[in-house]
Amino acid sequence: MPEIRNMPNLKYLNKINSPQDIKSFDIKTLRELCAELRSVMINTISKTGGHLASNLGVVELTVALHRVFDTPHDQFVWDVGHQCYAHKLLTGRASRFHSLRKDGGLSGFPSPKESEHDSFMVGHSSTSISAANGLAKAKSLLGKGGTVVAIIGDGALTGGLAYEGLSNAGRSKDKLIVVLNDNGMSISRNVGFIARHLAALRARPRYVRAKMMFSNLLSSIPVIGSPVRNGLFYIKTEIKKLIYSRSSFFEEMGFNYIGPLDGHNLEDLIHGLKAAKKLDRPVLLHVATIKGKGCEFAEKNPDIYHGVSNFDTETGDRLPDPETFSSVFSREICKLAAEDERICAITAAMKSGTGLVEFSKRFPKRCFDVGIAEGHAVTFSAGLARNEAIPVFAVYSTFLQRSYDQILNDAAIAGEHIVLAVDRAGVVGEDGETHQGIFDAAFLNTIPNATVYSPSCFEELRINLRQAIYDVSGVAAVRYPRGSEPDGLKYYQPDYKDYTLFRQDGSEILLVTYGRIFANVRKAANILKGMGIPVSVLKLTRIKPIDSECATLAADFQSIYFFEEGIRWGGIGESFGSMLIENGFSGRFKLTAIQDFIPTCSVQTGLRSVGLDTDSIVRLISKDCGSAGMEGPWVRTV
Amino acid sequence: MPEIRNMPNLKYLNKINSPQDIKSFDIKTLRELCAELRSVMINTISKTGGHLASNLGVVELTVALHRVFDTPHDQFVWDVGHQCYAHKLLTGRASRFHSLRKDGGLSGFPSPKESEHDSFMVGHSSTSISAANGLAKAKSLLGKGGTVVAIIGDGALTGGLAYEGLSNAGRSKDKLIVVLNDNGMSISRNVGFIARHLAALRARPRYVRAKMMFSNLLSSIPVIGSPVRNGLFYIKTEIKKLIYSRSSFFEEMGFNYIGPLDGHNLEDLIHGLKAAKKLDRPVLLHVATIKGKGCEFAEKNPDIYHGVSNFDTETGDRLPDPETFSSVFSREICKLAAEDERICAITAAMKSGTGLVEFSKRFPKRCFDVGIAEGHAVTFSAGLARNEAIPVFAVYSTFLQRSYDQILNDAAIAGEHIVLAVDRAGVVGEDGETHQGIFDAAFLNTIPNATVYSPSCFEELRINLRQAIYDVSGVAAVRYPRGSEPDGLKYYQPDYKDYTLFRQDGSEILLVTYGRIFANVRKAANILKGMGIPVSVLKLTRIKPIDSECATLAADFQSIYFFEEGIRWGGIGESFGSMLIENGFSGRFKLTAIQDFIPTCSVQTGLRSVGLDTDSIVRLISKDCGSAGMEGPWVRTV
Repeated sequence: MPEIRNMPNLKYLNKINSPQDIKSFDIKTLRELCAELRSVMINTISKTGGHLASNLGVVELTVALHRVFDTPHDQFVWDVGHQCYAHKLLTGRASRFHSLRKDGGLSGFPSPKESEHDSFMVGHSSTSISAANGLAKAKSLLGKGGTVVAIIGDGALTGGLAYEGLSNAGRSKDKLIVVLNDNGMSISRNVGFIARHLAALRARPRYVRAKMMFSNLLSSIPVIGSPVRNGLFYIKTEIKKLIYSRSSFFEEMGFNYIGPLDGHNLEDLIHGLKAAKKLDRPVLLHVATIKGKGCEFAEKNPDIYHGVSNFDTETGDRLPDPETFSSVFSREICKLAAEDERICAITAAMKSGTGLVEFSKRFPKRCFDVGIAEGHAVTFSAGLARNEAIPVFAVYSTFLQRSYDQILNDAAIAGEHIVLAVDRAGVVGEDGETHQGIFDAAFLNTIPNATVYSPSCFEELRINLRQAIYDVSGVAAVRYPRGSEPDGLKYYQPDYKDYTLFRQDGSEILLVTYGRIFANVRKAANILKGMGIPVSVLKLTRIKPIDSECATLAADFQSIYFFEEGIRWGGIGESFGSMLIENGFSGRFKLTAIQDFIPTCSVQTGLRSVGLDTDSIVRLISKDCGSAGMEGPWVRTV
Repeated sequence: MPEIRNMPNLKYLNKINSPQDIKSFDIKTLRELCAELRSVMINTISKTGGHLASNLGVVELTVALHRVFDTPHDQFVWDVGHQCYAHKLLTGRASRFHSLRKDGGLSGFPSPKESEHDSFMVGHSSTSISAANGLAKAKSLLGKGGTVVAIIGDGALTGGLAYEGLSNAGRSKDKLIVVLNDNGMSISRNVGFIARHLAALRARPRYVRAKMMFSNLLSSIPVIGSPVRNGLFYIKTEIKKLIYSRSSFFEEMGFNYIGPLDGHNLEDLIHGLKAAKKLDRPVLLHVATIKGKGCEFAEKNPDIYHGVSNFDTETGDRLPDPETFSSVFSREICKLAAEDERICAITAAMKSGTGLVEFSKRFPKRCFDVGIAEGHAVTFSAGLARNEAIPVFAVYSTFLQRSYDQILNDAAIAGEHIVLAVDRAGVVGEDGETHQGIFDAAFLNTIPNATVYSPSCFEELRINLRQAIYDVSGVAAVRYPRGSEPDGLKYYQPDYKDYTLFRQDGSEILLVTYGRIFANVRKAANILKGMGIPVSVLKLTRIKPIDSECATLAADFQSIYFFEEGIRWGGIGESFGSMLIENGFSGRFKLTAIQDFIPTCSVQTGLRSVGLDTDSIVRLISKDCGSAGMEGPWVRTV
């Protein structure tokens, strides 16, 4: 029997092994189950950190979904995935819930690798309808039964991919339910067309009372095999008579629109989902929820409690935020903007995460939250740049993946001067494999004439940001990691140089690196010195283009080790290695970089798993020097 | 005075140096100008090839735009850009129009490098509203005057980026006009939500007669400085009284909707644009046009005459299509699908270009044209794959850039088996720098666990397609060039091997390459042999992952030259070079790859400009061998 750690006296959750176990629960029991789910979530997240407000908002919805549908035969696709905790607790993962977002523990996002009840890998926004469209289409083509349900927030509907998904799923005629979880928020307050459209739909005297509505309807729904078209027409007419408004947008997309329903009323939800399940075509069920529901401080400040680290379960009190690369960026971009009115800041629904809250208050006319629309953010920036503004798009590395074509075609070809402030570059820790910032160095590397800086400390971030804005043309990026400045760099005095060589007397070994892990490499160099192995260190600050002088410097050494906190293929290390061999370097070269996706784990564990922590670096080099001697053959790794 | 080559007797176009020259033309003269524009376009495109039907459709619209607005103070953003020919003819480029799409000639797309009247670099679809949003915002922030006009087709509105642009531009409150050029087509017939929405708007008893409507309106429009809000309200009410329908979609997006207007009636267009220009906020002007207008065979078959090579101006007769990689793919995918009902084909509005017409006829239930929505195409494919269908997404290399994040996050992490049939990989020729397929090898290279094949000939494409579908898991890509099989490969017998070594006795030089230019490298090897320089050739067929045996083979040679028809940084050549040096290779390595965007030119010119034609390869190696001798130092190029 599963048992939830530290919460032995639960009435239901310690007994639920699979969603089948709740099928017989009556409404009263289900309500108590919801209360337990909330209590376990608040308790656990207060210790593990995680997504609080979004998960509290969908407790009733999740219970209702599992009551009505049978996963894995039916399939749920949770958009973004940061609202799947209740789903995890109900699908056999309660006893491991304390390991959420920890090394080797549960992912904070749905993952088919983790459970057959997770139908699709999720992490980025606005994918669920497209994915559900594909899942449903394959079911109908290959004669598999079951219903596919996409659960998507109103924030995710600001993304163009959701629009593409709606347009295609709507005309597919496949059995498919989109549950629109409408809380009026992205991570911050939601913006734009969809926000207005949904607000208009919600602004009714009261919610549609689903029970009344659907009990009438259900009796009129044809059994399978009867003339569906007439039946559907009848249903549609009935619904229109009963509800207060309809959505021309979703109906034109090809969906039957039902709603809005009270997303915290279990009976209404169950009736609504049952009605949607009976329809043999695309349905959009509009559900209004409260983000943070059932937790006073989270309800009041859903943006602050969207994603949290540890907090006090009674008061919500949290540790004060330490200084981070994001907060340094935050102050520096304000300082620059105060001096130069051409500077604009752009964010894709991540004002808080990327450090633009202060900017948005001080320079509201020059701050643009475009919604979850990274493609637009870059093309819009290119337009700003064309007419001589200076756009700075602050974005997480993992989300910038969505702008690759726009960076290339809309900015780089014409040489528009856009600045990318790439936050969360490198291993990000607990958010797991869908959020690792391990690709930006490689994909930015492919872009002709782009300039990319990778600062190692706060002061260097300030310098590089200024350089990116004023010293270079075309596409310029400054990429920096999540969190605090690394230890051990207090003696490092950054300047405006593109690289720095720390030469150790008598060294025949050169370690090359960039970014945060420069600190690890420095520490390793000190340890190796103590072991009698002198090594020099070359730290790159501008990683694209690499200064060609670096090849000349490297020629003085016998062995070169490159350490890269980024994907190996197409990364800076391979460019460096190729540059060396093309310049006639005849010594040895060894590249340590990331070779695969990195699952949920702490930053330290992640770096250790790919050999980028101080110990691994020391071990690698001392082993090469010790076991076979400096002149012996290396073990070939490729 | 400019003169249009071969058309000396034109009445107007030979005298127009700038759009200012048409300001004084009356309607009758403008109509004659439109006829001349059509005649010049048909004449020129029949010789140069290019986009015929889309350009013929917007002649009146373009003339009206230049009559009402003053570029470059006002700015036009032509979405996709394949409808800018009349604009080019009116903006000082008439005398060079015969050079369209030729080496060193005019680009077939707008380019700020070419003219100050081209306000933004365009080539890919659905960018114009986002770009115009940025252009207009910078104008308002920096106090520049003028109006920004985005001209976008209904096809481009199927792209998610256009939706993101509409949502953001609509709420910007900036002066901005979106002209919706609605011809009911993408390249093929348009699909989905937008198509239905616009069809409903167009289905009126007759078009809005703009003159009647706007002459009333104009008198009521407030001059600048008067209470705008009341004025606008009045206008809106008036418009609603006068037109037959309104678009809730565009109005909810935040636009004043005007239309639909007859896009071939100059007076209506001019009045409509003048009215839109007076409004100090976002306006959407819906214009109905006929693709191919004024050319009988193009009107009848606008998809066939969307983009053409040479044709007969009277009959439209064209040379029969030669066998191409696309047509080989077309037959092979049908053959495979006939044997395996799990195979599905997906296209993003490019059924004809990617060779899926036959498939769509034979297997309509398994063929999905998702509109111009490459992101959706991949996520949808991942959903299909998850439920055990086998999706094959046929897409041009340049457009696949839009799916980078979806390939990584939605397919690769969970290991979904999707197959990418990447057409137009490599230098594409006349479509120019926004359409070069020179990035796919590099960005696919960054994706962990992906498999990428790059066949050199038709038979190898057939083999690789089968391998991609059946022999590998996860993300699999087959990339092949535009056009015909290269000459000189008739002796090459492809098989299922991932690489082939053609060893020349006594050779100390190894040439490594992949894809189409293998033919050039083979030819170069033969020529070099004749010159007394024996060289071996290693042809990679699977370019990711590179077989580690290749490093062992390479160890037998003194000098290795890598030739890559793709971007240098992050490409296969750098991976290869890095692999060599990591494996202790101590000879020389030289990488010839593409280092910058490639402007409008033929494939041959493009390849020559980057040193990838046979002559350049021969010259490079014979010079290295001859001038300094095999043992002398190389000139360092990095």
